Amino acid sequence: MTAAPTIQAPRLGEPYLLTPGPLTTSFPVKQAMLRDWGSWDDDFRAMTQEMRDRLLAMLGAGADAFDCVPMQGSGSFSVEAMLGSFVPRDGKALVLANGAYGQRSAQTLAYLGRDYVLMDKGDYLPPRGDEVARILADDPAITHVVAIHCETSSGILNPVEEISEVVYGAGRKLLVDSMSAFGAIDLKVADVRYEAMVSSANKCIEGVPGFGFIIARKTELEAAKGNSHSLSLDVHAQWAHMNKTGQWRFTPPTHVVAAFLEALRAHEVEGGVAGRGARYRRNRDVMVDGMRALGFETLLKDRWLSPIIVTFFCPADPNFDFARFYELMKAKGFIIYPGKLTVVDSFRIGCIGQMDEHIMRQVVTAAKESLAAMGVSDATPPALALQERAKLAA
Amino acid sequence: MTAAPTIQAPRLGEPYLLTPGPLTTSFPVKQAMLRDWGSWDDDFRAMTQEMRDRLLAMLGAGADAFDCVPMQGSGSFSVEAMLGSFVPRDGKALVLANGAYGQRSAQTLAYLGRDYVLMDKGDYLPPRGDEVARILADDPAITHVVAIHCETSSGILNPVEEISEVVYGAGRKLLVDSMSAFGAIDLKVADVRYEAMVSSANKCIEGVPGFGFIIARKTELEAAKGNSHSLSLDVHAQWAHMNKTGQWRFTPPTHVVAAFLEALRAHEVEGGVAGRGARYRRNRDVMVDGMRALGFETLLKDRWLSPIIVTFFCPADPNFDFARFYELMKAKGFIIYPGKLTVVDSFRIGCIGQMDEHIMRQVVTAAKESLAAMGVSDATPPALALQERAKLAA
Ligand SMILES: Cc1ncc(COP(=O)(O)O)c(C=O)c1O
Ligand SMILES: Cc1ncc(COP(=O)(O)O)c(C=O)c1O
Repeated sequence: MTAAPTIQAPRLGEPYLLTPGPLTTSFPVKQAMLRDWGSWDDDFRAMTQEMRDRLLAMLGAGADAFDCVPMQGSGSFSVEAMLGSFVPRDGKALVLANGAYGQRSAQTLAYLGRDYVLMDKGDYLPPRGDEVARILADDPAITHVVAIHCETSSGILNPVEEISEVVYGAGRKLLVDSMSAFGAIDLKVADVRYEAMVSSANKCIEGVPGFGFIIARKTELEAAKGNSHSLSLDVHAQWAHMNKTGQWRFTPPTHVVAAFLEALRAHEVEGGVAGRGARYRRNRDVMVDGMRALGFETLLKDRWLSPIIVTFFCPADPNFDFARFYELMKAKGFIIYPGKLTVVDSFRIGCIGQMDEHIMRQVVTAAKESLAAMGVSDATPPALALQERAKLAA
Repeated sequence: MTAAPTIQAPRLGEPYLLTPGPLTTSFPVKQAMLRDWGSWDDDFRAMTQEMRDRLLAMLGAGADAFDCVPMQGSGSFSVEAMLGSFVPRDGKALVLANGAYGQRSAQTLAYLGRDYVLMDKGDYLPPRGDEVARILADDPAITHVVAIHCETSSGILNPVEEISEVVYGAGRKLLVDSMSAFGAIDLKVADVRYEAMVSSANKCIEGVPGFGFIIARKTELEAAKGNSHSLSLDVHAQWAHMNKTGQWRFTPPTHVVAAFLEALRAHEVEGGVAGRGARYRRNRDVMVDGMRALGFETLLKDRWLSPIIVTFFCPADPNFDFARFYELMKAKGFIIYPGKLTVVDSFRIGCIGQMDEHIMRQVVTAAKESLAAMGVSDATPPALALQERAKLAA
């Protein structure tokens, strides 16, 4: 069996990155970086415009009320830019946290001196609409709710539609960190209401890292003038300058942008968000089935599993050692990711990047051989782990 | 005559970027981006460490009192990170401005709500030691002085040694924006005293854009804890995390880092700062001589000309049109840069990147042909321009 034509194996000796970005990108995406662009020149301005248009188009009908603002730096820079630009200085945010990235949004607001409250659901339990509704009813000062679309630290797909309904039902505004989901999971403005969302170059669009982007309602972009705590991270200023001149305010990562444009074209060829999402779901299903057959258990019950990244409990067998497992897997060509759970040991395997179900089967085989090399015959997790999972509704 | 072996022509059809970054990089630098790296993996941590060590080594004897902290985003992000991290909230900065980048530092401090005064020397006149001394004597609240090493908007090389002496003579601290100079112009800690400086990947080291770096005294890095206005741009937090884990706090631009490492190795092969600086000075001399022979005049007298970028006055001839000149030059394979002077029309030609004196001669020939195509027989600037230049001491 051969791989689907949209998939490109990395070059000899280069491992697959089963991580949530940086990830394995196609060779044409990287080849697009083999030339230098003048950031002031018309050619590059046209590339920036094409990129913004393509990203915006993914929002579907109603996208014309929004605009796309690329921002230099990693994804966290774009999250900070969104929070600092759209939560006004006298606003108050409710952050829905169930993992590291929700916590990071709260920490960002603390740096910015913006008032906020944290709804902390621990390592992975999803924030639900009724809970959010209660907090909003009790605290009329809250102006904005910050939600994480896919909380990459556990891999859970949070119920943003449900949250959005409650937020707008209570007359508040929603900001979404869709870093690891956008491009593979729909966030159509006709389906989910929000003011702004953020993602980055090196996630589901399969570009290389170097910038992020904020997609926001134009009325919010206009109203954001003067809000930002930071010159570099001022979304309004970047937007206004870009619309006036076609240029980024400060030097753009030209090569990374060229690679991203190539990635966006490939994304379209694969069938856009629907096609990309279907491949990732297939990756996840094949990989999770195979790992379960070895005795591994996922942290999350099926309905909460994202097609982005999956958390597995470490096996109870005392012969299992994650550092060794990591090195064994790497030697077989697969880089996996450590877990972020605080209560039990875990690790993560990503489903995104230039990989398909054939690769995922090789991943499972590599895991099987790595267990054998460590003398682990059964990957069943400790009882504590399964008690932990029982907390989560199906 | 063939080009020096360290120089690589861009590929067919790709123009030379005679701009102050992004610039023309070597093909091996770009080829280093043809693979994906896991940011969590040991291999990439080693790359980050090698990069930091190589940058620090350029400071010469005494460098062990300093550390190097890379920062995602463009150079302006690193400037903002430096200002927000090292000027304490109750500090006060004196910004020495003679162009756009000095102004930008002042604007950054205004965003951050840090107290500052601006010494504004206009478009290009250099801030001198005696003037700085007077301001510091008159205002004991000033804790930090911010200087621009090469003010890229005019191309002037500001007298940082003279400024440093005055600053420390008055018991204050110096922060240097050496964005466009570092790597080609010495900033050895044995010669010039300062607490921190900043530069970026896509200037004189000849990497591609995507991150900057702050080099700071370790005692200042320690003292910076809690100062930053921004989570993303917190130099102390990035430094502490990197030294503890070997990783960047947030996703690094892995491909850009790989390219930069290749660029740093080539920089060493060329003879480090001395070798790189010598090539750029030769580029400037050949180019300026040639342009003067066509009648063009530089904004700056020779002693102030940096080897980074040179500002020329636009010719007085009414047939001269910069937009047309730009397109004619581009069609011949050279992308030049518009000027930033407020009083008279000007343009700039950069001397940095993968170019040597042979290329610079071609640039002059292209300028000659472009003038002819516009029907400009003499490139002499208007009298107003020469009056302007007369303000500057030789
Ligand atoms: C949901 C989410 N938010 C924010 C981030 C931070 O992005 P970056 O690491 O590029 O700063 C990530 C990174 O994986 C993420 O998954
Ligand atoms: C002296 C100086 N400071 C700051 C900057 C800003 O850097 P960037 O455009 O990468 O944000 C530049 C860019 O050319 C510069 O030359």
